[in-house]
Amino acid sequence: MEKPWGGRFKEETEELVEEFTASLPFDHRLWRQDIAGNRAYCKALVKAGVLSEEEGKRIEEALQEIAREMERGEVALDPRWEDVHMLIEARLMEKVGEIGGKLHTGRSRNDQVALDLRLWLKEEIERQDDLLRGLQIALVQKAEEWFGIVAPGYTHLRKAQPVLLSHHLMAYYEMLKRDRERLKACFERVDVMPLGSAALAGNPYPVDRRYLAELLGFSRISSNSMDAVSDRDFVLEYLAVAAIAMTHLSRLAEELILWSGSEFGFLVLPEAFCTGSSIMPQKMNPDVLELVRGKMGRVCGALMALFTTLKALPLTYNRDLQEDKEPLFDAADTLRRSLEVMARLVEGIEVRRERIEEAATQDFTLATELADYLVSRGIPFRRAHRIAGEIVRYAEERGKDLRELDLGELRRFYPEMGEDVFSWLEPQKALERRKLEGGTAPQRVKEAIERAKEELGL
Amino acid sequence: MEKPWGGRFKEETEELVEEFTASLPFDHRLWRQDIAGNRAYCKALVKAGVLSEEEGKRIEEALQEIAREMERGEVALDPRWEDVHMLIEARLMEKVGEIGGKLHTGRSRNDQVALDLRLWLKEEIERQDDLLRGLQIALVQKAEEWFGIVAPGYTHLRKAQPVLLSHHLMAYYEMLKRDRERLKACFERVDVMPLGSAALAGNPYPVDRRYLAELLGFSRISSNSMDAVSDRDFVLEYLAVAAIAMTHLSRLAEELILWSGSEFGFLVLPEAFCTGSSIMPQKMNPDVLELVRGKMGRVCGALMALFTTLKALPLTYNRDLQEDKEPLFDAADTLRRSLEVMARLVEGIEVRRERIEEAATQDFTLATELADYLVSRGIPFRRAHRIAGEIVRYAEERGKDLRELDLGELRRFYPEMGEDVFSWLEPQKALERRKLEGGTAPQRVKEAIERAKEELGL
Amino acid sequence: MEKPWGGRFKEETEELVEEFTASLPFDHRLWRQDIAGNRAYCKALVKAGVLSEEEGKRIEEALQEIAREMERGEVALDPRWEDVHMLIEARLMEKVGEIGGKLHTGRSRNDQVALDLRLWLKEEIERQDDLLRGLQIALVQKAEEWFGIVAPGYTHLRKAQPVLLSHHLMAYYEMLKRDRERLKACFERVDVMPLGSAALAGNPYPVDRRYLAELLGFSRISSNSMDAVSDRDFVLEYLAVAAIAMTHLSRLAEELILWSGSEFGFLVLPEAFCTGSSIMPQKMNPDVLELVRGKMGRVCGALMALFTTLKALPLTYNRDLQEDKEPLFDAADTLRRSLEVMARLVEGIEVRRERIEEAATQDFTLATELADYLVSRGIPFRRAHRIAGEIVRYAEERGKDLRELDLGELRRFYPEMGEDVFSWLEPQKALERRKLEGGTAPQRVKEAIERAKEELGL
Amino acid sequence: MEKPWGGRFKEETEELVEEFTASLPFDHRLWRQDIAGNRAYCKALVKAGVLSEEEGKRIEEALQEIAREMERGEVALDPRWEDVHMLIEARLMEKVGEIGGKLHTGRSRNDQVALDLRLWLKEEIERQDDLLRGLQIALVQKAEEWFGIVAPGYTHLRKAQPVLLSHHLMAYYEMLKRDRERLKACFERVDVMPLGSAALAGNPYPVDRRYLAELLGFSRISSNSMDAVSDRDFVLEYLAVAAIAMTHLSRLAEELILWSGSEFGFLVLPEAFCTGSSIMPQKMNPDVLELVRGKMGRVCGALMALFTTLKALPLTYNRDLQEDKEPLFDAADTLRRSLEVMARLVEGIEVRRERIEEAATQDFTLATELADYLVSRGIPFRRAHRIAGEIVRYAEERGKDLRELDLGELRRFYPEMGEDVFSWLEPQKALERRKLEGGTAPQRVKEAIERAKEELGL
Repeated sequence: MEKPWGGRFKEETEELVEEFTASLPFDHRLWRQDIAGNRAYCKALVKAGVLSEEEGKRIEEALQEIAREMERGEVALDPRWEDVHMLIEARLMEKVGEIGGKLHTGRSRNDQVALDLRLWLKEEIERQDDLLRGLQIALVQKAEEWFGIVAPGYTHLRKAQPVLLSHHLMAYYEMLKRDRERLKACFERVDVMPLGSAALAGNPYPVDRRYLAELLGFSRISSNSMDAVSDRDFVLEYLAVAAIAMTHLSRLAEELILWSGSEFGFLVLPEAFCTGSSIMPQKMNPDVLELVRGKMGRVCGALMALFTTLKALPLTYNRDLQEDKEPLFDAADTLRRSLEVMARLVEGIEVRRERIEEAATQDFTLATELADYLVSRGIPFRRAHRIAGEIVRYAEERGKDLRELDLGELRRFYPEMGEDVFSWLEPQKALERRKLEGGTAPQRVKEAIERAKEELGL
Repeated sequence: MEKPWGGRFKEETEELVEEFTASLPFDHRLWRQDIAGNRAYCKALVKAGVLSEEEGKRIEEALQEIAREMERGEVALDPRWEDVHMLIEARLMEKVGEIGGKLHTGRSRNDQVALDLRLWLKEEIERQDDLLRGLQIALVQKAEEWFGIVAPGYTHLRKAQPVLLSHHLMAYYEMLKRDRERLKACFERVDVMPLGSAALAGNPYPVDRRYLAELLGFSRISSNSMDAVSDRDFVLEYLAVAAIAMTHLSRLAEELILWSGSEFGFLVLPEAFCTGSSIMPQKMNPDVLELVRGKMGRVCGALMALFTTLKALPLTYNRDLQEDKEPLFDAADTLRRSLEVMARLVEGIEVRRERIEEAATQDFTLATELADYLVSRGIPFRRAHRIAGEIVRYAEERGKDLRELDLGELRRFYPEMGEDVFSWLEPQKALERRKLEGGTAPQRVKEAIERAKEELGL
Repeated sequence: MEKPWGGRFKEETEELVEEFTASLPFDHRLWRQDIAGNRAYCKALVKAGVLSEEEGKRIEEALQEIAREMERGEVALDPRWEDVHMLIEARLMEKVGEIGGKLHTGRSRNDQVALDLRLWLKEEIERQDDLLRGLQIALVQKAEEWFGIVAPGYTHLRKAQPVLLSHHLMAYYEMLKRDRERLKACFERVDVMPLGSAALAGNPYPVDRRYLAELLGFSRISSNSMDAVSDRDFVLEYLAVAAIAMTHLSRLAEELILWSGSEFGFLVLPEAFCTGSSIMPQKMNPDVLELVRGKMGRVCGALMALFTTLKALPLTYNRDLQEDKEPLFDAADTLRRSLEVMARLVEGIEVRRERIEEAATQDFTLATELADYLVSRGIPFRRAHRIAGEIVRYAEERGKDLRELDLGELRRFYPEMGEDVFSWLEPQKALERRKLEGGTAPQRVKEAIERAKEELGL
Repeated sequence: MEKPWGGRFKEETEELVEEFTASLPFDHRLWRQDIAGNRAYCKALVKAGVLSEEEGKRIEEALQEIAREMERGEVALDPRWEDVHMLIEARLMEKVGEIGGKLHTGRSRNDQVALDLRLWLKEEIERQDDLLRGLQIALVQKAEEWFGIVAPGYTHLRKAQPVLLSHHLMAYYEMLKRDRERLKACFERVDVMPLGSAALAGNPYPVDRRYLAELLGFSRISSNSMDAVSDRDFVLEYLAVAAIAMTHLSRLAEELILWSGSEFGFLVLPEAFCTGSSIMPQKMNPDVLELVRGKMGRVCGALMALFTTLKALPLTYNRDLQEDKEPLFDAADTLRRSLEVMARLVEGIEVRRERIEEAATQDFTLATELADYLVSRGIPFRRAHRIAGEIVRYAEERGKDLRELDLGELRRFYPEMGEDVFSWLEPQKALERRKLEGGTAPQRVKEAIERAKEELGL
């Protein structure tokens, strides 16, 4: 197949080379963006007088026709067309003849691919922001539904202090909120129109870049043509944001796996999100959660892949940059699908209230209250902590809970212990005492839920 | 050494374990932040009535004294003190006795370390923003100094088209500008005050969190105590931003290494930034640049390290989080030192104008002009490209430059070729034609430099 | 679709979940291995008396039929079949009815997938070893073809000392030799037969594992059933080996890009391995090499992905392990295709002898000889180095080469300098002096080439 | 400070540059290896006639003296000495005057540092092999001590089938065995003597490389001087091996954290390996295990750092290679210390036999036996699996265990169910039935333990 760039070449490209260098197998996914870019550029060339109105019209119509063909899957993805740009250009020339060749005037695949990728990523970020919001909604709804349930709060995977189960859920709400902030900040740096940079030095035709930006929905245009064709920061930044979001999902998945297992037994996963074993008839496995957890790896891998690829690349465009697309697409697909499935899964979770509330006060989770009680009697915290620790040891050795000790026993450790100590050991009281902003006191958690609903526009 | 948390323990910690778990060898670096946090918390406890005015005053004075001792390096970093928090608390109690133990009332190392780290990173980000600006200034000054010099613009490390050398430099200005934007966005998410979250559930004492935020210079307070002690997003985000910045430095370093070698020969590096060989007397090696390029790896490594560490951690605090500090400190030091040294190095570079301008038109860098000329005569770009390619092949086979062909030769490929084609082949014209915003036309580059100076406050 | 494991489930799996968990889109690639494993297991079940001869025969025939269908692409990859194992089992039951259900007796997908993956990787490693050998052959042939050509040896990308070009090529031979050693060592750990481990606890049927190993061509059987189903070390190890090999290819690609550019101008790449520009008619870009260089990133990314996924996974099988296949396949494909294309490319390279030999003595590459000459006159090396350095500075300031200085000039720096110094400054002499094993002396390089040919069986 | 390579330089190195390029702060750790290399090289120079016997003797004595000084910490690490090689050379020249300068004859820091690093890593690998063995011993001893205890075997973190607790421990034995195999294979590629390669082209003095190898305890010498100074494969390979070993430790740590928490409650960690909370008096946290788990990240990070650094580096030595040491040292220290602490910790673990054995049959872990029973009655496995699944659902809905169902209930699902089914449901029987090699049958596990003890030389 004759190459559009083949003028100076004496030999034909090797078939092996064609296969090796072809990006069409993965960049065909950008066809909508490529056609959108072509249509806008066609308009700009008409405005610049490079194309006549008539030529512009014919090209425009042909592009629309190609779009319909692509939509219907009628365009064969022959890898000899190297990439989606060449595929569409070739199709265009089949339709309109040589004037199709005018569309590339003053343009290079270097700025064209930067444009397509930015268009694609802008849309994808918006989709993902929606999906993050969807998971936030699922979490907030559960936080409302389960409001009032007391759960063990963990540190070091050891029960630490009782908290509201809703408070725990709202911690994930906060993480996702930051993910959305980061996506939004990233979006601003994606939202920059590179067309007009040509290969590297800028387009020598009087194309109106701001008009192009307007047609294509960009807020800004790029400031330096050499930077514009070499820059893949926006992909790196997106991948980093995606990897952080996947980190959050992996943490949530891990907790749901633990909490729904029979050892913890706090939650019941929706059956439709579990799968069985090919050998063990009793199994109901949290496969979806395991996959979400495991898939964090591939998003980190994608990020690391691109960093390695970009390291020490001289300006401007180098073919290495073609390696940006597969990690980007794979990471974006992974995050998008993980968010979808997690939101649906969270909606279907049921809580085993009795079990979780029982656990909330096991393992001496109220020992800090004991120390705080002693502080209220004037004992410096460090000494109070030590006394409470000794009481815990005493109780543990006797197989008793703190609340099962009598006043006499408690007074061995602190003679002035009063009857009122027992009211400090009620979990509800422990919650209510943590009433600073951000604390687990019911009033505070309720406010946090309300604020979240407002932020979500619910 | 007796542990402040040792009440319930029967056995002493193993020495091996003390060494293994100690973070003091690296977190002592946070002592200023820890003392600042202690002082603010002391004030807040006084305001809350947990400490008397008198107690507050004694603690405050002791903390200031400790700060002076630390400054003078008088406090031994005994690793048995686990971490900087315990070291300072122990020192405080030596000074004020048991009331020192009151300072930990309602506070945990979990919120304390989150506070210290955020304070540290806020300052560091400000330092790095300054250093990024410093490198931008060096680049812009060179762009001004070298204004007018024509250089070969490269794609695929092959000469592509002539550009202004200043245009090339300004591409790096743009990259660093984005780095600063990212740092700023990251700063917003670091600038959140976590104190008051205690271990995980919130502080049960009536401490005024907004007062604390004000004392410590934070814009916001954290919204969920469980999130506040588990969250290390802000470190991940910083590391990603730093790794992107190092990617830029690695690209700049690579180009400077290439361009200052005798094969390219465009630039002369300042001798003071080169080193010699222990065996080869003639060598003058660009070691500083090689190190900057190589050090990109360690910042990527730090990012990957923390992602792996955070994967699938259940809420809330887990000791794994201690592994956040060393990658953070190492990456921040690396970026900071690389920026410092690069700014100084760039200032000292000299250009070999004759050589670079000669190169700017070698390797047929004006072939695109030839194609554009043909377009101006009504030939569709694709065909014009092909004709120009054939002319290049013809010239190359005869060892001639495009401008050395005569009209007769050119007309073999396009019979209507006019005399005016030669004016299209002047590099200055080629530059001037690229006068869209972002292009390499001298007027545009001048404007870009002016805009940059304004942005830099120069 | 009814699941083979659905007995205890009340609800149907969500379609979204089916899509999310399906591995068929990528693991169908293991169908040959899966059928081979099924056939061997069928034989073992007959031997164990679990299947009758007759049943075994029917199953065997059906499996062969399925293989033919798969080969012809006649089996639809319905993602509801979850994975390749279920697809083939379902097809089998369509053919032989319920007795097909006996084939899973005592077996689990956990040991089945470990088997398939090991079978696949064993074959792949053999293919890749062949391809590594192919690239070694191409290098050694070039080393022979170009024997005698003197080239500049570089350190810090600055000319350092003259070497034989063949010596430089043979450095890559050594790297690839280590890659093959590592692949071989890795192979030994892949070559372990896991079948018989069942889900985790071992197979309760009297299946002869050594017989299975023999049928399937394994040297060893796994020693612990729990380890056998959880272990993905062999994938990690392969990925690390592949990433190291890609590091070598990235270094080779970088050098070829540099050396074939007009600034260095030492080599000419085969045109058929270059591509052009859509805008610049003169361009002949080393795209293949750039892609090989860039693709190192994706192999590193794959390695990092799997490390992150495996981190802290409890025993035994977890669904996270499904995330092993895509990085493995992608990395293996990348390395395989890169090796193929590099071998072909190396074969086609031409050298510009005059240019490279001229460069070999530029930039004072013989300064070390000068120092060595002084050492031969009894001066300690450190002082000799300093004197030679001063002479270089002197020559450089006068725009002269070392060999252009006269004896008078040289004696300003060392009065006893003799006439014989000039013979030390002949590049051929410089080469010959380095005649230790591993050195660049022609005799040594010739021996190295001979040894390599022997190792390659040429 | 005057540089040993300063002859051709006019300007002094910037102080900032000295700090930036200095490797002494971390490579001083190689002083023993550097002195060993110097001593051997001194002997080889005497043998080659470059040094006289007398000179050799003086240098040798001085080097020994320097070693004693270093041991006593008497040598100041002035960073202006760039690196450990220059530090020791300078010290030598202080002691023996100019003849010290002869020691560098025919040698470069490029081959010197490759030597030092290889010497260091060889010793380190041997230490780590010992430590891996130490952890294997701890595991095997526990496997013996706990022999006979039945534990739940998990897949997907859900109870799957009963196994011997010792079988589970022995899975880790197998992983560490592979780690040792990998270390050994890596050792072979470290065990190559690079001295004699000089800067890149080989040493022009008649130094006997095999004699050097013998003196320094190497099995082989490097085959290509250019490769020898550029090669850091051996570091990459070690880092990959270390990261795989850390993956194993992270999995073990995770399991121990889970199993020692009150929800699982199977194990009791030694108190001396736990730490408390600064706020919650009851806490006993598995910090050591959390750190081991978290530290896997830094070893992966080190690997990724070096891959990124090495990507696309042209031959031969580049200063980027200096970035190999810190990740190597950090990763090696991390693995070494993690192994030490894990072996000690494992030794101190206690098992809660009653609890773990009770858990071993919970959650229908014997359902597979039920299916196998049905198979023994001639039902194809797939159908048997389905029937057993339905029985599980039936039992679960009634809150019963499988063994609590009566024959009548069982016959609803399979009318021919016999009395003998109950003997199939005894956990001990379930274990014994898995008596293939690698299975959990007590006899097999005992054999595995015996084999391990033999392998360990116990």
